[in-house]
Amino acid sequence: MPLIVQKFGGTSVGTPERIQHVATKIKKHVENGEQIVVVVSAMSGETNRLTELAKSMGELPPTPREFDVLLSTGEQVTIALLSMALHQIGIQARSYTGSQVHILTDSAHNKARILDIDDKNIRADLDLGKVVVVAGFQGIDEFNNITTLGRGGSDTTAVALAAALKADECQIYTDVDGVYTTDPRVVPQARRLERITFEEMLEMASLGSKVLQIRAVEFAGKYNVPLRVLSSFEEGEGTLISYDIDDKDKEMESALISGIAFNRDEAKVTITGVPDKPGIAYQILDCISDKNIEVDMIIQNISADGTTDLTFTVHRNDYEQSMKILNDASEKFGSKEVKGDNKIVKISLVGVGMRSHAGIASQMFKVFADEGINIAMISTSEIKISVVVEEKYLELGVRALHESFGLEQNYFK
Amino acid sequence: MPLIVQKFGGTSVGTPERIQHVATKIKKHVENGEQIVVVVSAMSGETNRLTELAKSMGELPPTPREFDVLLSTGEQVTIALLSMALHQIGIQARSYTGSQVHILTDSAHNKARILDIDDKNIRADLDLGKVVVVAGFQGIDEFNNITTLGRGGSDTTAVALAAALKADECQIYTDVDGVYTTDPRVVPQARRLERITFEEMLEMASLGSKVLQIRAVEFAGKYNVPLRVLSSFEEGEGTLISYDIDDKDKEMESALISGIAFNRDEAKVTITGVPDKPGIAYQILDCISDKNIEVDMIIQNISADGTTDLTFTVHRNDYEQSMKILNDASEKFGSKEVKGDNKIVKISLVGVGMRSHAGIASQMFKVFADEGINIAMISTSEIKISVVVEEKYLELGVRALHESFGLEQNYFK
Repeated sequence: MPLIVQKFGGTSVGTPERIQHVATKIKKHVENGEQIVVVVSAMSGETNRLTELAKSMGELPPTPREFDVLLSTGEQVTIALLSMALHQIGIQARSYTGSQVHILTDSAHNKARILDIDDKNIRADLDLGKVVVVAGFQGIDEFNNITTLGRGGSDTTAVALAAALKADECQIYTDVDGVYTTDPRVVPQARRLERITFEEMLEMASLGSKVLQIRAVEFAGKYNVPLRVLSSFEEGEGTLISYDIDDKDKEMESALISGIAFNRDEAKVTITGVPDKPGIAYQILDCISDKNIEVDMIIQNISADGTTDLTFTVHRNDYEQSMKILNDASEKFGSKEVKGDNKIVKISLVGVGMRSHAGIASQMFKVFADEGINIAMISTSEIKISVVVEEKYLELGVRALHESFGLEQNYFK
Repeated sequence: MPLIVQKFGGTSVGTPERIQHVATKIKKHVENGEQIVVVVSAMSGETNRLTELAKSMGELPPTPREFDVLLSTGEQVTIALLSMALHQIGIQARSYTGSQVHILTDSAHNKARILDIDDKNIRADLDLGKVVVVAGFQGIDEFNNITTLGRGGSDTTAVALAAALKADECQIYTDVDGVYTTDPRVVPQARRLERITFEEMLEMASLGSKVLQIRAVEFAGKYNVPLRVLSSFEEGEGTLISYDIDDKDKEMESALISGIAFNRDEAKVTITGVPDKPGIAYQILDCISDKNIEVDMIIQNISADGTTDLTFTVHRNDYEQSMKILNDASEKFGSKEVKGDNKIVKISLVGVGMRSHAGIASQMFKVFADEGINIAMISTSEIKISVVVEEKYLELGVRALHESFGLEQNYFK
């Protein structure tokens, strides 16, 4: 009897009608002979409502422990309502808060990490033929304090439960019907992927395809939990995220590239004429990270006169502050010039096929050259190539790559 | 260092501003050198909102276990917010759900009874100088299921905590500033009582002075927890409910009567000409209680011809059904006539002083006779005398009694 963990996010349970719709979906799985554990988020809007209430108390930020006590009520409401909706259509169900199912976390309130799950109660209920409904996003620390896992925590709860229960699959229901080769709003020919590997998904997610939270994907990869992204509202197979493409698919591994990710929130800053001595990059970047600014791509060029130029990208929100820090550092290090550009984007080709195929990079650069797009920065890893280009070339660049690498064709069928 | 348990109901914590006001009140007590445990209800309106959500799932009534999971979020929101408000004004506080403070109840969902409280965490926090904020109305059964205590449950939580902690006083903050000699809307001269005994309070409460839930008063009496009713919104001493009027007051125990309660929701039904044989009253009343109708006063007269008349009072909502039941019974028992009146009220004099003073009843009857008010039924207990009169005489009767027994004067000061 297959054991499936299903997760429904805030939009999927955003109204009483949608909760009833979710109950109907679950019923079909039960009637298919599957054992079902459901993880739910707070109804959409609820977390904001609670956050506003907290703000109205005047304490900013609110005491983390008490904020968790407050926020965790959101999912608790949903588990009760979904269990009622299931009972109403004849499905036995039983709800559990994070505390009741004993999702043990560390004590880092508002961003706790799951340490252990006690699956005893869940297994007993499943054996009795019940659907188990678990509050996502929340747990309890060793001192019995309520904790929350931070953004996207419900995905992590679902994956952690699937790992603890050794579930056959963890299904994440969202408002999209799967992972696409790229954003269909940019490339209408974008195709839903039937499968993708964890590594590819991580690159796609961290680069801006916000279907799944990175943390949940990492967790699923670590415990080898097959993860499937599906639509809450439409029927369909969604996209399966796993380690292994099975044998039939291996024969057809001409799919070099899985998808194209892009990120519009980039800005780059450059400091030129820095004395070229050991540790200078570290010293400059240290000024940036001191302010909790995350640096993404970094390039260092050596110029002829014994000085060096350093360029790096940051989130666009951190652009002004980064420029200010570099200008201050410029005086200190006696560098020549500080310049920046916050009208840039990053485009990335992602695919495990790259590992064994040369020539992907040169094909990518040729596509851009043919379209007259200048590449400002390049960065590569085993399974991705990222380039920085002017913002205005984003759509043109992504569409040209999508066509050149034949992503509109389905290799798996 | 006095230990006080304070309870604030839904109206007192109905808005963010009111929660902040409650925090300010608590701060004063802390600065007075008191140890404070606070019990709070859900914000007013919240329980209704959650109940509507439950209804929208279509399951009527909702599964009791899941309904408790849902409702208990209401108080959980309040404990978090109040703790934040306390922190904001420099008072250390710590919130506990019913589960966390381990308020162990039986498994009767929606109307559970408290069996035990683990005061370990609370005492530890109090010793650290913290205010402890506990969610009212909720607990947990031996299987770790969330339970709720039913209507007025937060009062019960407060009293139970006060009993477990052997608190010096349990203060119930409401929207009235104490217990009055009678309803001030009927008698403007009605006076706030400084003190009242548990027994008197029970009679006052059950007769319609809805300041405190009967269950909480019973509980306080059983464990001898001094209970004080105060206003959340105004300053004042409120009314202390305890067993013993202290020595100074004993000397002045000319206060025969503490108050006058009345109930507008009464109706009476009479069946006449019933054969006067053993068990007949039981058989007739059994038909009534079979339908879950509660009978209050009962009078049986014996007439000359070997038949008897039986009159009793019921809640006005049960009048039509009671008449129908009696008409059906009338055929079965061969009685003469069934008649009823749903335009009656019950007025009761309450006071422990009655025990040792004769003549209260005759003074009461004389007051009514002087005003030309006919008494339809009379019932007495050790500390109260109740009469049933026509509805139109309610205000006249209560005012006349209030004046005749000198209730506008304060004997305790």
